[in-house]
Order: sequence, then C-alpha cells, then structure tokens
Amino acid sequence: MKVIDDIAGIRSYVSAIKARGETIGLVPTMGYLHDGHLNLMRMARKLSDHVVISIFVNPTQFGPNEDLDRYPRDFERDMMLASSVGVECIFHPRPEEIYPDGYATYISVEGLSNVLCGVSRPTHFRGVATVVAKLFNIVEPDIAVFGEKDYQQLVIIKRMVDDLNMKVKVVSHPIVREKDGLAMSSRNRYLSAQERKRATVLNRALKRAEQMFRQGERDVYRIKNILTDMIMQEHGCNIDYIEVVDANSLSRLQTIERRAVVALAVKIGKARLIDNIILDPT
Amino acid sequence: MKVIDDIAGIRSYVSAIKARGETIGLVPTMGYLHDGHLNLMRMARKLSDHVVISIFVNPTQFGPNEDLDRYPRDFERDMMLASSVGVECIFHPRPEEIYPDGYATYISVEGLSNVLCGVSRPTHFRGVATVVAKLFNIVEPDIAVFGEKDYQQLVIIKRMVDDLNMKVKVVSHPIVREKDGLAMSSRNRYLSAQERKRATVLNRALKRAEQMFRQGERDVYRIKNILTDMIMQEHGCNIDYIEVVDANSLSRLQTIERRAVVALAVKIGKARLIDNIILDPT
Repeated sequence: MKVIDDIAGIRSYVSAIKARGETIGLVPTMGYLHDGHLNLMRMARKLSDHVVISIFVNPTQFGPNEDLDRYPRDFERDMMLASSVGVECIFHPRPEEIYPDGYATYISVEGLSNVLCGVSRPTHFRGVATVVAKLFNIVEPDIAVFGEKDYQQLVIIKRMVDDLNMKVKVVSHPIVREKDGLAMSSRNRYLSAQERKRATVLNRALKRAEQMFRQGERDVYRIKNILTDMIMQEHGCNIDYIEVVDANSLSRLQTIERRAVVALAVKIGKARLIDNIILDPT
Repeated sequence: MKVIDDIAGIRSYVSAIKARGETIGLVPTMGYLHDGHLNLMRMARKLSDHVVISIFVNPTQFGPNEDLDRYPRDFERDMMLASSVGVECIFHPRPEEIYPDGYATYISVEGLSNVLCGVSRPTHFRGVATVVAKLFNIVEPDIAVFGEKDYQQLVIIKRMVDDLNMKVKVVSHPIVREKDGLAMSSRNRYLSAQERKRATVLNRALKRAEQMFRQGERDVYRIKNILTDMIMQEHGCNIDYIEVVDANSLSRLQTIERRAVVALAVKIGKARLIDNIILDPT
C-alpha cells in the first residue's frame, strides 16, 4: 500500500501506470471508511486495473458552522480497510497542498446546487465540484466511483464532467445499508445509542414511500405528508427537507410521471443524515 | 487545413497526434484574425509539433448589452491567414456543441475577475475561464498561447490552470501593435477613420506612463492623473477605467514598488478598446 501526500508524487505514480497502458479507478473519500466506501472500491477494482483512493476532508465543502473540525478521522484503520479490498494507493494530501496560498478558482453547477442539501448548505456543492475536478485533473482516472447516498452530489458531478468535457467515466454504486436499514455514513458515529435507533426512521419512511408508489400513489403531496408525519413522530428528529424531485434535473415534482428520487435530510442529535430512494414509473 | 466542428472529431484528431508522441499547441480565438493572432500561432508552432486553433465567438463571455451579435466574422479569410502561418487544424464548433441544452457548469476565478474589465463586464471572465477550461479538456494541448493585450484574462487563465491542476502550459505573447501604436484587436474595425486616429491616444498615454516611470515617478495617483487628462482631451473618448495594479494579484497600488501593470479601457464610438503596459521597478 502506497500512501502519497503530494501532487507531484501521485502524478508520477499514475503516469507509470498509464505508461503501461493500464487503467485507474478513483474513489474520492473523506476517510473514516465504512462498508459503503469499501463497496465503491470493490466496484472500482472490477472496472479498472488499479484503484487509487483519496482521503481528504475537504474544507471548501463545509459551511462555517458545520463539522469540519470534528469530522471523524482514523487513518490507520482506513489504510487497513482499503488494503483489504485491494486498494494499492492512497492519496492523502494536506489542505495546503490542495488549496495553496492565493487559491481562487471555484466550479459551480448552477440549478442543481441550490436545491435539496444546497438550501441549508449553500456553498457545499461548489466545494465538492471544485475538489473533485482537481482530483480528476491530478489522478486522471479512467473511471471514478461515487455512492448513491449522496444522490445530489452524483448528479452534480456527472453534470460537471459532461459540461466541462472531462474524460473520466463516472459510475455509481447503490446505497449500502446497515442490517436495520440505516444508510452507512461516517457521520453515523455522532449518534448516541438511542439516536442510532431513532435514525432507522429515515429508511423506514423511504420504504413507506416506495410502498405507496408501488400501490399506485403518484401524488407527491400525499407521499411527503406521510413521510413527514412518520419522521416527526420520532422524538428528536428535525427534518431539514423531504423532497420528491426529477431524478435528472432535481426539479420539484407534483406528480411522479418520470424517474424520481425521494430525498431527505434529517438532523438527529449532532448528526445531519441524508438518504434517498429512486421511484421509477417507466 | 482541417476544419472540425464537433468535439468527437477534434478528439480523434488530437489523439492520433498524441499516439505518435507529438505535441500540440492551442491558440483559442474568436476569429476575425489579425496579425496579433498570427503571432500567437507562430509562437505555438515554435513551441509544439502541431498547432490547433479554435475559432469560437463564445456567448458566455458577452454581457446582455455587448457586441455578441455584431462581433466581426470572416471564416474564409481566417482559414487563409491561419494556414499561412502553419496552422493545421481549426476547431470551429457551433454554440450548441459547446453549450448543449441543460448546460450548467461555470468556473469562477475569485478576486481577479471583479476588478479592471470585470467591473463593467461582471460575468465576462466567468465565461472566458469556462470556455478555456472546456477547450483545454477537449484539445488537451501541451501548451496554449494567449496575448498580453488581454492581460487580466491571461492572469486569470494562469491562475485557473494552477488552481485546478491542469496540465497545459500557458505561455503569453507581447502585444502586437499597428505602426502608429494602436494595439491590434478585432474590435478596431468598429472604428471610423476619425475614431481610428483618436484611438492612438491609448498607446500614447501608456508610453507617457512608461516615460514618467523611467524618470523615477512611482506615485500611482500622479500617473493616473496625467493619463486621464491626455485621454479626456481627445474628443469622443470615454474612459471606462485607468488603473495601476500589481501584475500578479491585480490589486490596486498606490506606489509602484513591485511589478505593476498600467491597464486601461476606453470607449470610442462603438468600440471598447483595452491596452496595457508593464512597469517593472526590479
């Protein structure tokens, strides 16, 4: 396992691979890896000759009152876990390597970034798009794998790659869940035992939406109402949003007539958790 | 001379060159070529095996009341001129090839884009940075050549390339001038014979600034005053700005103690003309 912390180093590592005509799969992460991440790495391994992951808690995607400072970190454990699924190289730069003095350039994906999570996190996706573009330019992967839990992020990155004519192929992996249905997330560790139990309401609510949809419900208002009630009945759950949006444009729907995503964000204790489910009437 | 209007076509053209291990120099232009452009192409030819130019009047860098619709075009003449200096390929896309339906991604270089020309053209450099990043990703040139007349553009593009870890090397070419000193520009054709004569005041003013500087003047206020007077005495010249700024950060100076640029924009008739000169005390 190679750990590289500078841009020149990772560039020479990947150019040696490319010189042999072999392919690279990249999995960008903020570390504190869980089985969700490991599934992305397994997928990258299937789709490419070599897997590079990045572990970088990206400051530009955190708002001023968010959890940048207390975001969980455990690099030793991350190395072991990544190694166990065949990752050969971790790019683990310091913030000043990615954002040196005088840094000034930001990428915005308009329209897609000011809805859903973008409402309460207005600069979040600008930070995500910018760091992902930088990682793509530094590592030059053939494919990059992202999880579908961050559905909005996935749509934004795909849009950026298309719009800016980047060569990487973006692939996604379905949400990986705990046995009780909670979507895996590094932020789940913020939950107390009791909060952890309550947090299962997110997935239960989404499954309820799916059930309603399967039984023929197409009215977004009625679906949102049921989900809101379910989550509000759970003590200590504060809804940030529950939305049903077009799966491509992320624009709000009134009726589900094309591929839609039910997306929600809920604050439980110190954690802000997100989850989603796709509903496809076609 | 190859003329290619689609992204897939130019990609296959450049990948054949790269497969042979040869290098590409790119000169992005909006067409209506003049000897300033041709010098950039000559420079690109010296520095690389093959020269690709783009001719694309980029809509996203024009404001709502600017000259997008009447920007001069003469593609037949451009082909002849480009061919005469050894250009082998012109990328000449339609706007919808570069900005298809649903296009949403923009690159901003903060701090450098809201001064000088950015004051009266608030979205101009966002459009420039975006289209140049797209051209870099499409053509993947080893080097790209820009003129120093658009000094702010040059600083912004260099900053973007560094910040986003792009691999292209940006090189610049000194301003090319008419015999009477007027900086060459496609927009000079907007000038009537009388306006054309008056327009020489821009270069005369900058030369006066240089003369003052050589004689020891370091006070920006006094330099700006003299230049303002010179230009205002010329009938029909409306000053957009005259500034003396740090040559790297573009921040305003009061005293010239490090490499500075005197930059100005003046409206004469239907043309808005820019010009600049570097003053280096070191």
